[in-house]
This record gives sequence, C-alpha cells and structure tokens, in this order.
Amino acid sequence: MRKVFDKELAMLNTRLIEMGDLCVEGIDMAIEVLFNRENIESKVQLIHTVERDTDRKERDIEDLCVNMILRQQPVAKDLRIISAALRMIADMERIGDQVADIADIAQKLESGEIFNLDTHIKDMANEVKGMVTNSIEAFVNKDVKMATDVVANDERVDQLFVQIKSELLRVLYQDISKGQIVLDILMVAKYFERIGDHATNVAQWVEYTYE
Amino acid sequence: MRKVFDKELAMLNTRLIEMGDLCVEGIDMAIEVLFNRENIESKVQLIHTVERDTDRKERDIEDLCVNMILRQQPVAKDLRIISAALRMIADMERIGDQVADIADIAQKLESGEIFNLDTHIKDMANEVKGMVTNSIEAFVNKDVKMATDVVANDERVDQLFVQIKSELLRVLYQDISKGQIVLDILMVAKYFERIGDHATNVAQWVEYTYE
Repeated sequence: MRKVFDKELAMLNTRLIEMGDLCVEGIDMAIEVLFNRENIESKVQLIHTVERDTDRKERDIEDLCVNMILRQQPVAKDLRIISAALRMIADMERIGDQVADIADIAQKLESGEIFNLDTHIKDMANEVKGMVTNSIEAFVNKDVKMATDVVANDERVDQLFVQIKSELLRVLYQDISKGQIVLDILMVAKYFERIGDHATNVAQWVEYTYE
Repeated sequence: MRKVFDKELAMLNTRLIEMGDLCVEGIDMAIEVLFNRENIESKVQLIHTVERDTDRKERDIEDLCVNMILRQQPVAKDLRIISAALRMIADMERIGDQVADIADIAQKLESGEIFNLDTHIKDMANEVKGMVTNSIEAFVNKDVKMATDVVANDERVDQLFVQIKSELLRVLYQDISKGQIVLDILMVAKYFERIGDHATNVAQWVEYTYE
C-alpha cells in the first residue's frame, strides 16, 4: 500500500512540475507579446492554448489528489502534501488566467507604444517571472529557504506597482493623449502584481508542506 | 453511517451559507466606504475583520470537507458536493480579499471625490452585489435556474467595466488634475469585475452540483 502511495506521490510531483512549467512558459510569452509585436496574433493564440492546457492539468491533478485521499487514506503528513498540492494548482491556474488577460490587453496596444513609456513595467515582468520560476523550483527541491525568499520578494513587486503607477501618472500629465495606453498598462501592471501574489502563495504552500 | 454523513452535509451547508453572508456583508461595507465617508477608519477596520473571519471560515470548511472525505468515503454524488464546496469557498475567500482591496483604495480617496465623477461605478457595485447574493441563494435553494442567471449576468458587469473605463478616460480628457482618482477608480472597477467573476464561479459550482 505504501509503495503504491509513494509512486502516486512521485506522479503528483511530476504533474505539479509540468503545470509550473506551463505557467513560466505563459509568462515568457506574455512578456514577448508586450515587447515584441511580430506575429502577435499567433502568439496570443498560443497563450490561450497554454491557458487551456493549464486548466486541463489542474483538473487532472485534482482527480489524482482526490483519488489518493479516497483510496489510500493518507496519514497526517501525506494529507498535508496533498492539501498543499490542491491549493498550489488553484494558484497556478490563476496565473494562467492573468497571463491570458495580459495577452488580450497587449494585443490591442498600438505597435511600439509601450516602448515610448518611461516605466518599470519590463522590470516588474521579469521580477514576477523570477518569483514564479523560483516558487516552482523551491517546490521541486523542497527548498524552504528559497520559498521564503520568494515570499520576501513580493514586497519588491508591490513597490514596483506603486512606482509604475506614479510613472504612468507622470506620462499622463505630460501628454494627455496617452490616456488609453496609461490605463491599459496600469491593468497589465496589476495583473503582474497578482501573478506575484500567486507565486507567493505557491511559495507559502512549499513552506507549509516541508518546513 | 449515512445518517452521520447527512448530518455533516447539513452542517457543511450551514457553514457555506454563513461564509456567503460574510461576503455579502463585506460588499455592502465596501459600497458604504466608497460612498459614505463618515467614520471611514472604523468601517475599513471592520472590513478587514470580516476578511479575516472569511479566511477562518474557509479553513473550518476545508477541515470539515477533508474529514468527510476521509471518514465517510463518500459515493460519487456526495463527493461531487464536497468538491464543489471546496471550490466555492476558494472563490468566496477571494471575494473577501477584493473587498478589502477596495476598502484600502477607498480609504485614500479625497472626501467626496467619487461623487464628482460621472461614472457608473455605483451601478456596477450594486450589480455585482446582486450577483453574489443570488449565487449564494441559488446554492442554498439548489436553484440551478437562478445560478444560470447569475452566470449570464456577468456579461453585463463586463460591459459596465468597459463603459466605466471610457467614462474615466473622458474625465481625464476634461480635467487632467483628476489623474490620481481616475487610476484609483479604475482599480476599484477592476476589483468589482473580479468579484463578479468569482460570483459566476460560485454559480457554476451550483450548476455542476445540482443540475
């Protein structure tokens, strides 16, 4: 019985890593559509495909978890891992949603507009991507220290959001005709901030599971 | 065994209704802090208390669900209800978070500012509140028809968000000094839109469970 359970735990681990990889892939593509507008239509389509893959992966992992609980009657520590897995996938699924939201906004932006704005949006995007990557890696390596660093990093992302908001206000005051793009980029920044929050949640589930 | 399980199902139902009531209470208070600034500090504090109560309720319900699965080995239909309950509380918990985010923004607004903006933000707030109330009521009464109406209503909320965004742009073009409040109200509108999404999710769990 224990042997079967360990095998299923290993499978759960693999599935979670695959889902995490999908999230990072999605963020990479979101950054790509924001800052490189070649073949933008097909890139946005690809992002929506990745989002659907993420949703499907979530349901697969959910089924696996429920079956593990039902058939194996796990003890406290194992149940803890399964509960954490169920919560992590909910956060990863949201990351997929936010990425798709960013892609939809990016698609509507005028070509090149974002480059003319003096904001830290690209830094924020990269910072958040690092958090997601590291939260998954912390999980894979059961690295509580790395998870704690991700949690701490969220403050930097929150600061970047506040900074970008001031930068966008400054852009507005200099050129009122930029109203539309300012509101759009503010939304993009908000989505990245939310992705940072979800990465933080994932990291906190790693702490909860392995500390 | 079945009798114990039915008793626990009834308890789960009661807990879910209580959590739903907390969500509606939070939205009421968020509308209150936005549009009536008397005693704003204590109102915002109260909203954060409600948010913490919502979080605690979520954990209680989670424990109850996991225990029901572990001890009762539910059959397919019962498992369906428990799975739906676990997903509904995740959405309700997010509603609590968004309400707290709205309260934090409202607290920083200049007194009376929001009244001078010609936007549909109050209509949006009321529309979303209706969706949350009805999604909970649909769950309580196992009313799939009502749940389907909530899902359909989300389109109206999405349209209101687009409309408010244009209204805010118009405010900007007329008076650039309103930049700060325009960005803040856009965020508030976004949070209400998200609450609408979560109410839609809750309604879809009602459909999934009882149709």
